[in-house]
Amino acid sequence: MYQTFEVTARPEQGPPRLAALREELLREGLDGFLVPRADAHQGEYVAARDERLAWLTGFTGSAGFCAALINVAGVFIDGRYRTQVKAQVADDYTPVPWPDVSLPQWLREQLPEGGRIGFDPWLHAAGQIRSLEKELDGSDIVLTRCDNLVDRIWQDQPSPPMQPVRNHPMEFAGESAGDKARRLAEDLRKNEHKAAVVTLPDSIMWLLNIRGSDVPRNPVAHGFAILHDDERIDLFMAPEKLNDLPEALPKTVKPRPVDDFLPRLETLEGPVRIDMVSVPQIVADRLGSRATEGPDPCALPKACKNSAEIEGSAEAHLRDGAAVVEFLAWLDVQPPGSLTETQAVTRLEECRRKDNALQDISFDTIAGTGANGAIMHYRVTEETDSRLEEGHLLVLDSGGQYLDGTTDITRTIAIGEPGEEECAAFTRVLQGMIAMSRLRWPNGLSGREIEAIGRMPLWLAGQDFNHGLGHGVGTYLNVHEGPQRLARTSNVPLEAGMILSNEPGYYREGAFGIRLENLIVAETAKPLPSSDPEREMLCWRTLTFAPIDRRLIQTALLTNDERKWLNAYHQDVAEKIGPRVSPEARLWLDAATAPL
Amino acid sequence: MYQTFEVTARPEQGPPRLAALREELLREGLDGFLVPRADAHQGEYVAARDERLAWLTGFTGSAGFCAALINVAGVFIDGRYRTQVKAQVADDYTPVPWPDVSLPQWLREQLPEGGRIGFDPWLHAAGQIRSLEKELDGSDIVLTRCDNLVDRIWQDQPSPPMQPVRNHPMEFAGESAGDKARRLAEDLRKNEHKAAVVTLPDSIMWLLNIRGSDVPRNPVAHGFAILHDDERIDLFMAPEKLNDLPEALPKTVKPRPVDDFLPRLETLEGPVRIDMVSVPQIVADRLGSRATEGPDPCALPKACKNSAEIEGSAEAHLRDGAAVVEFLAWLDVQPPGSLTETQAVTRLEECRRKDNALQDISFDTIAGTGANGAIMHYRVTEETDSRLEEGHLLVLDSGGQYLDGTTDITRTIAIGEPGEEECAAFTRVLQGMIAMSRLRWPNGLSGREIEAIGRMPLWLAGQDFNHGLGHGVGTYLNVHEGPQRLARTSNVPLEAGMILSNEPGYYREGAFGIRLENLIVAETAKPLPSSDPEREMLCWRTLTFAPIDRRLIQTALLTNDERKWLNAYHQDVAEKIGPRVSPEARLWLDAATAPL
Repeated sequence: MYQTFEVTARPEQGPPRLAALREELLREGLDGFLVPRADAHQGEYVAARDERLAWLTGFTGSAGFCAALINVAGVFIDGRYRTQVKAQVADDYTPVPWPDVSLPQWLREQLPEGGRIGFDPWLHAAGQIRSLEKELDGSDIVLTRCDNLVDRIWQDQPSPPMQPVRNHPMEFAGESAGDKARRLAEDLRKNEHKAAVVTLPDSIMWLLNIRGSDVPRNPVAHGFAILHDDERIDLFMAPEKLNDLPEALPKTVKPRPVDDFLPRLETLEGPVRIDMVSVPQIVADRLGSRATEGPDPCALPKACKNSAEIEGSAEAHLRDGAAVVEFLAWLDVQPPGSLTETQAVTRLEECRRKDNALQDISFDTIAGTGANGAIMHYRVTEETDSRLEEGHLLVLDSGGQYLDGTTDITRTIAIGEPGEEECAAFTRVLQGMIAMSRLRWPNGLSGREIEAIGRMPLWLAGQDFNHGLGHGVGTYLNVHEGPQRLARTSNVPLEAGMILSNEPGYYREGAFGIRLENLIVAETAKPLPSSDPEREMLCWRTLTFAPIDRRLIQTALLTNDERKWLNAYHQDVAEKIGPRVSPEARLWLDAATAPL
Repeated sequence: MYQTFEVTARPEQGPPRLAALREELLREGLDGFLVPRADAHQGEYVAARDERLAWLTGFTGSAGFCAALINVAGVFIDGRYRTQVKAQVADDYTPVPWPDVSLPQWLREQLPEGGRIGFDPWLHAAGQIRSLEKELDGSDIVLTRCDNLVDRIWQDQPSPPMQPVRNHPMEFAGESAGDKARRLAEDLRKNEHKAAVVTLPDSIMWLLNIRGSDVPRNPVAHGFAILHDDERIDLFMAPEKLNDLPEALPKTVKPRPVDDFLPRLETLEGPVRIDMVSVPQIVADRLGSRATEGPDPCALPKACKNSAEIEGSAEAHLRDGAAVVEFLAWLDVQPPGSLTETQAVTRLEECRRKDNALQDISFDTIAGTGANGAIMHYRVTEETDSRLEEGHLLVLDSGGQYLDGTTDITRTIAIGEPGEEECAAFTRVLQGMIAMSRLRWPNGLSGREIEAIGRMPLWLAGQDFNHGLGHGVGTYLNVHEGPQRLARTSNVPLEAGMILSNEPGYYREGAFGIRLENLIVAETAKPLPSSDPEREMLCWRTLTFAPIDRRLIQTALLTNDERKWLNAYHQDVAEKIGPRVSPEARLWLDAATAPL
């Protein structure tokens, strides 16, 4: 299904729904209820039935929550959504700048005498509730578990998604589900954990070598799993989803109805590992003192791709690169002022969909031209749709889901003749991307400890950007995947096989935006003649191949090494992608990748 | 007093002392006793009476400890001292590679049935005891406070140092002791702490604008202080040290005998802040539940130098640079093979002492030639003293204490004609130092988040070095000062006024070593024309001025920006230091700083 650009929010629907919710509050003797944009799996994309925040308030952003009290309803939104929220919610709602104002802080102000705030224990991670309770400590405000009050009043709430699950073949997975369960169970035994609860859908998909379609853009099915230390797995998933699996799951996997999940938790012997960041509060409640904290057992093994996954991802990137090049070649001959952002997005999606291998796009495309490019998470709608004008930069961040891999690429393209400042900033962003691409670093460092490398060229000019340099990426799984990150917040050591994005940017509010993004995979570095004998190092292999707009590069700013890197990269792009595109696109590509 | 190079360790003294200690163990009903190389102030340099580890075992390294049990005595030493310890201790002692083997791990192996291990609660920081106890949890080994058993058997143990304290004038301190107490007390009140205990001598010196001479190289006096939230300060220090102070301490400071310290703790109302890393266990014991954890209140304010301290330090560095240049000019005309390390060290110290402003050297000089240069913390003795031979690199790490500042400089100097590999590695080390020197970075980052910048040139060649890029430095205080560091272990945000070392290196075991070190001070960066309007950034100002050996630089490896930085730096060196040196040295300096 092609992405659409409709404006789905209607502010006037909010107030009557809020009134109905408040009736429920009174019925329950509550002073408030929390409505997060979340499902029981803490996913970035949620199913239609889990769009409670948008249904109640009208706010459609990808992050945020509402604290609906009797007299006031706060809609908590981060810096990205300060403008959008005002257009989307009615006056009955009060936008709250988050995290500048925290929920506990706001609750203390609104309820100086204290009060009872209800929450649905399926929709909040255990760690989140713990820190909320800690911050409310000393006030007379208590958090109390309750039914989901929005579900009670939402008459036409969609049903839970019920899409069939399919096998993810060994050819792409590279390791059987049985082998995965074996090594994870061994890890449980080593930690003396009897079992681990897994609620992240991409973890379950990875563990069982299956894929689903319960939410847009992410090939996952909703469900829960319990991995036991003897390799057995309880899989709690609607039987309808599993009925048509061509290849059976391993014998050690016992499918059960979702309703069996909570009762099964009661029967487990402890200690049972739960990941406080992803496991819902209700799981922690049921396990009580049998719960022990630890990371999702699939998270790190899933992040470290095996060679089948890496080669699959590389192949997917060549296919995706060909689609991007077809698009770029086409875009290049459209006169400035003739196209809008949505037209560009649709054309790019068409180019991707011409390849039958495409399963879906991997996220809703970000296409911001001119000043829109400076809005980091801009999502074009019919209302904001802007024309690609002479002198604009177009930031285009998009990706595809293929059976063998997930892609995520950003290019910034000059529309007509670019300005001087735009070119200088673009060159620095490029230098940052090159610096990270070329890096070789000692084993054991985390993203936090090397991220500066990709920012330094901007820093030297007094510039920076307010997002991480890179995030983890799955293989035919979620385009945002933990725990690996190239960010100040990431203390997880980088390991061979981890796929990450390398995406420095620059954003000048009201003027222009720039971002460049390649996916890169960490690998063990081959020793150089000068290498220290016993020092193990990692380096990156670039997966993304598509030209970088030469018109935006100030060649004189590049060092010899940077120019060499770029020319070699462009030569690779021409060699790898050239044979896969139309003759017209190939002609364009040859010029676009000519040495600087 | 000039530094000396005698071999003070005599292995044969150890066994009878160990036997005497074991008698005390039996008398006390203990299974062991811990002997750290530490005093009650957790200082890097200790007074003669606190050299218990060396007295007992013969091991004279600057870090390590002995766990003396009934049947075995482990001497725990880190990677720097694996060779030295073997030469210094008798067979009765067992070297233990630390931290590969931790003390609790080793105790569990040695005492499978459990046992009682005594320790002197003055010599161990509270945080250290807490983590030891945590790691021993579940074993039958208990830690128990006791008298210092070494002091009991050490007949001719030197007395505690009793050197007079002197004022540190406002001209250099830049802020009165009263003002310092005022802002620190305000911070206590903000945190609702009634008082804070300060046991770090450099913190007390800084707070009261005094200096002492109780230990070598660090201008500090031993004592303890309690800062109250109403600005009053109890200073526990031998009255003899304070008798001759020309300028009185502020009226809010109440000097008391050291013996009053523990009883005074008993009378304090809580919460009382203690720094678990530096405050001895006995203080935590006395305070009990009135203690609350927090950083030494002086640590961060002391680290952020005011303009008097920064300008003082800059001036001290010019004086020190002149001494270094005189030495380098002299060294350059000595034929290869004609000098030894100790002769070089003594000559360098003579050059520094010609300036009457020198109070002391700031640490024992590290001078390693040839393969000795690869030993990171090499301290030359009469036994290891080596000749500076043709083709050697000489690593020379030294510094001075002046009333207006503390210096710490490392230069690596070619003796005769350097080899190709040496020059390539030297150039990379230089590139790392230049990259950090040129850096500009957004406010709020810690050393951990920018340290990679100074390592990247080595990394790209498969090389690295096993120490931090930089440490904090005081102003006429300790040459190693926290909390600021350029290291993987440092999460403290860098702030304007912090002085740090910038000292990348490279060490090829058995072959050669390289290190370059300048001191740099963080300052608010002036906006550039390209700067983001609201982004506050920091940058470095270099304090150290002395030439970098041009014979070791492979100019072709440098980028234009790097060459420009070096030429500008050398021009500064010539302009600032030239007028301060002898005519011969100035001639040499002009050649040594000629543009590349």
